[in-house]
Amino acid sequence: MTKLENSLMNRIVSLCKRRGFVFPASEIYGGLNGFWDYGPLGTQLKNNLRDRWWRDHVECPPLGPDGKPLSIVGLDSTIIQHPRTWHASGHVGGFADLMVDDRETKLRYRADHILALEVFYEKAGTKKSLGLLSALEGDEFEESLTKKAKKLIQKAGGEELVPFDASKAIPLTNLDETTRAKVIGPDAQQAGTLTEPRAFNLMFESFVGVFQNEDSKVYLRPETAQGIFLQYKNVLDTSRVKPPFGVAQIGKSFRNEVTPRNFIFRSREFEQMEMEFFCAPEDGMMWYEFWVAERMRWWESIGCKKENLYRHIIPENELAHYSKGTSDIEYRWPFTAPGFGELEGVAYRTDFDLKQHTEFSKQTLDYIDQESKRRYVPHVVEPASGLTRGVLLLLCEGYQYDETRPSPEWLKIKPSLAPVKLGIFPLVNKDGMPEVAEKLYMDLRQDYITQFDVKQAIGKRYARMDEIGTPYCITVDGDTLKDQVVTIRDRDTTTQERVSLDKVRDYVAQKLGR
Amino acid sequence: MTKLENSLMNRIVSLCKRRGFVFPASEIYGGLNGFWDYGPLGTQLKNNLRDRWWRDHVECPPLGPDGKPLSIVGLDSTIIQHPRTWHASGHVGGFADLMVDDRETKLRYRADHILALEVFYEKAGTKKSLGLLSALEGDEFEESLTKKAKKLIQKAGGEELVPFDASKAIPLTNLDETTRAKVIGPDAQQAGTLTEPRAFNLMFESFVGVFQNEDSKVYLRPETAQGIFLQYKNVLDTSRVKPPFGVAQIGKSFRNEVTPRNFIFRSREFEQMEMEFFCAPEDGMMWYEFWVAERMRWWESIGCKKENLYRHIIPENELAHYSKGTSDIEYRWPFTAPGFGELEGVAYRTDFDLKQHTEFSKQTLDYIDQESKRRYVPHVVEPASGLTRGVLLLLCEGYQYDETRPSPEWLKIKPSLAPVKLGIFPLVNKDGMPEVAEKLYMDLRQDYITQFDVKQAIGKRYARMDEIGTPYCITVDGDTLKDQVVTIRDRDTTTQERVSLDKVRDYVAQKLGR
Repeated sequence: MTKLENSLMNRIVSLCKRRGFVFPASEIYGGLNGFWDYGPLGTQLKNNLRDRWWRDHVECPPLGPDGKPLSIVGLDSTIIQHPRTWHASGHVGGFADLMVDDRETKLRYRADHILALEVFYEKAGTKKSLGLLSALEGDEFEESLTKKAKKLIQKAGGEELVPFDASKAIPLTNLDETTRAKVIGPDAQQAGTLTEPRAFNLMFESFVGVFQNEDSKVYLRPETAQGIFLQYKNVLDTSRVKPPFGVAQIGKSFRNEVTPRNFIFRSREFEQMEMEFFCAPEDGMMWYEFWVAERMRWWESIGCKKENLYRHIIPENELAHYSKGTSDIEYRWPFTAPGFGELEGVAYRTDFDLKQHTEFSKQTLDYIDQESKRRYVPHVVEPASGLTRGVLLLLCEGYQYDETRPSPEWLKIKPSLAPVKLGIFPLVNKDGMPEVAEKLYMDLRQDYITQFDVKQAIGKRYARMDEIGTPYCITVDGDTLKDQVVTIRDRDTTTQERVSLDKVRDYVAQKLGR
Repeated sequence: MTKLENSLMNRIVSLCKRRGFVFPASEIYGGLNGFWDYGPLGTQLKNNLRDRWWRDHVECPPLGPDGKPLSIVGLDSTIIQHPRTWHASGHVGGFADLMVDDRETKLRYRADHILALEVFYEKAGTKKSLGLLSALEGDEFEESLTKKAKKLIQKAGGEELVPFDASKAIPLTNLDETTRAKVIGPDAQQAGTLTEPRAFNLMFESFVGVFQNEDSKVYLRPETAQGIFLQYKNVLDTSRVKPPFGVAQIGKSFRNEVTPRNFIFRSREFEQMEMEFFCAPEDGMMWYEFWVAERMRWWESIGCKKENLYRHIIPENELAHYSKGTSDIEYRWPFTAPGFGELEGVAYRTDFDLKQHTEFSKQTLDYIDQESKRRYVPHVVEPASGLTRGVLLLLCEGYQYDETRPSPEWLKIKPSLAPVKLGIFPLVNKDGMPEVAEKLYMDLRQDYITQFDVKQAIGKRYARMDEIGTPYCITVDGDTLKDQVVTIRDRDTTTQERVSLDKVRDYVAQKLGR
């Protein structure tokens, strides 16, 4: 993370707090690491993105390769499901991070975040080793290691640190056991106090019913997808769908991340937009390619620049054993730029999940084609994205800085997704202007989220609207009373058009579009 | 619960399962008591109700007593909040059910569900006591008690049960300690095996971070309301609102109910629609009355018959100590009819919550009026309703039975809330009809959730649509090819109108309305 990009991210976080997009959760109690609340504007922005995805997938699904609308239905399953679900899915056994504890400091780290390097110092012309020092990966790795080395040199009565090459540091998880046992922990003074890496499951646990024991233990879902597999049969039996068809779901998921970070990018409570697309086994690869392309197109359609999206094809040797193909759709986040980081995963999961649930539930989860009498377990392609991560994309992509504007910081969000659609201002709060403006407001608020604002100079009001991404501001001025014409200002160009009062509705409807 | 009403409820549950409104959660694993998943149609119905509430409160709030729109903003806070939240709110200390265990049978009951009664039998002309028998309240109380008494009589070698008056049974929680100690548990054989009633907290617990201990313990929120109080200050500071103003939130809440029941009426994972309306202390009673009236009006506006709603004013001696007035808005549920049961609570909570959080967080949560310089802690009126309970209302209110119709069971749901808006059918699947119908479908699906159906006789297709509450069905028949006119059938009247193809859009837009 470069200093500049870090500061871009900080400016976005700060704008979000200042204007009520995103607040730290439980802030009055000191906050809760990895939890974020959405303020008035953030909630509206998130709802708009949610509704857009739902509309484009469930309410009006895209056209398939044959030009006909795909068959996709919605689902809303519970966050707490029967615990066997997560045994079948592999989450109980495998959904874990490797952690190490430091016996000296009692601190705990994610094993893959620690880098180690042997560091040397000079004493009376002789080069001596300080041992295997370690620090956390990232921007401050070199600084941390230097600081620590200097302390140890002082303690050892040494003189000067021999310059080291931080890029030569080796991940703790790549060291053999003997070497790992010699590492000095990131915050420790002595060598050999780090424990073996141990798996730490990322699922939140709870208990249902009046007893707390192994039988009543449940998990908060770490993904919405499994709820779809559990209801696959009910949907098939009740919804007049047949493969190929999709089941889509939007909802909260929970992961007890050891190191939540990058604002709402990786939080412990987040929202997902996932779909399982069920198809005949021989069509799996075709639908996989279809959905990768379709999902990239969709992110562009909501306002993401093409050059900020990247399809990262997971190499065959890194694929999950059941997957015949997985692509990450990546975005150039401020904290990964100029590189990319995950936005959505599209995975061809074959029949793995349905077969696992068949085995664990002893229920038949196949499909019988009524015409051909063919019976098979459908294959599945899963486009899985984060709604809250999508909101972060809209904020990052929309954030603009231009010192020549009334508000140097402003948000360029696609009008149909902007949290507030219209600002309506009487130029001055007298001479009949407020009355005309209010009448217009009372009409337009029925269909668009509209703010009526009479406070301060018109430039300040434009600035406030730019900062939250309001695409159009309508001003009633002295002339309006004479000629029934208002001024409509475009957020992106800051140009103003004069529009007759009786044409405002059509103008706005056309501009806000989809 | 009468037999008839019970069966009405069973028919609704069965329709919900059959047509994909509501499924038992984790059904392939045997289900999870108190958890329900929403299928394709249920999800859409729930989304429609959610969006309607959000629109009517946040996007276009109602007009206040002065005829101007109220100021209400949205929020979306996390399910997991800092645990101090629930200490301050009183949920850690007080949000509990009283439970009793039976030492003989190892079964656990909600104390307030157990009724006890002394029962007698005759032996050789003498009346003898069987002791204090108990059973669970409800329809089957008398039956259970009789069954149990007969067993005990047999055991005692007695002859005949003396008829008893079930209405004389006394709640276990009303018995003094000595008497309670003599009760025979609902499933027990011996007296005195029930434990003292003990509080069982209804909040689900979990742990955040890598350690599981008292410091890392958190709760799944039992209500969305507290998240609003926690962000009250951030909203006030960032959203240009001032009292009177509301903060509204829709989201999931969790209660580890001991006895979840009545389908989705009382489930362990559910969705709420809550608002906190902050006002000057002297206006509290006025806003309380305003919101009770407004919320009753709203339920009517979404299609609930006036006679099925009832305002139950909580008597002063039953009010929470901090409340100056609380009304339950009740609905005539199938399982309470002819009586009513809770749908929404509107509570005037005074400044209790903000003061509690002030005390626990040491943050100042007051408001300073910039003009008058007056400083005060706002009073709060809270209309709190269940989204999932609202869905149940729509299903109960909408359920119709009429043997003369193509589908005797059909749903009369307000068109703007119906999950599917339009069915489009070619009368027969040939002679150019499918092409015309499909063209119309491809146009209308852009704006309305529309099903295109060519299968089976037209009557069956109408029946399928009636059963899920689709308000309008458009049929393309042989004449359409000649005169460009289609038939539009009205779900409620089953009458059909002939409408010219180029007028269909206007017709539909006008009929579906809000």
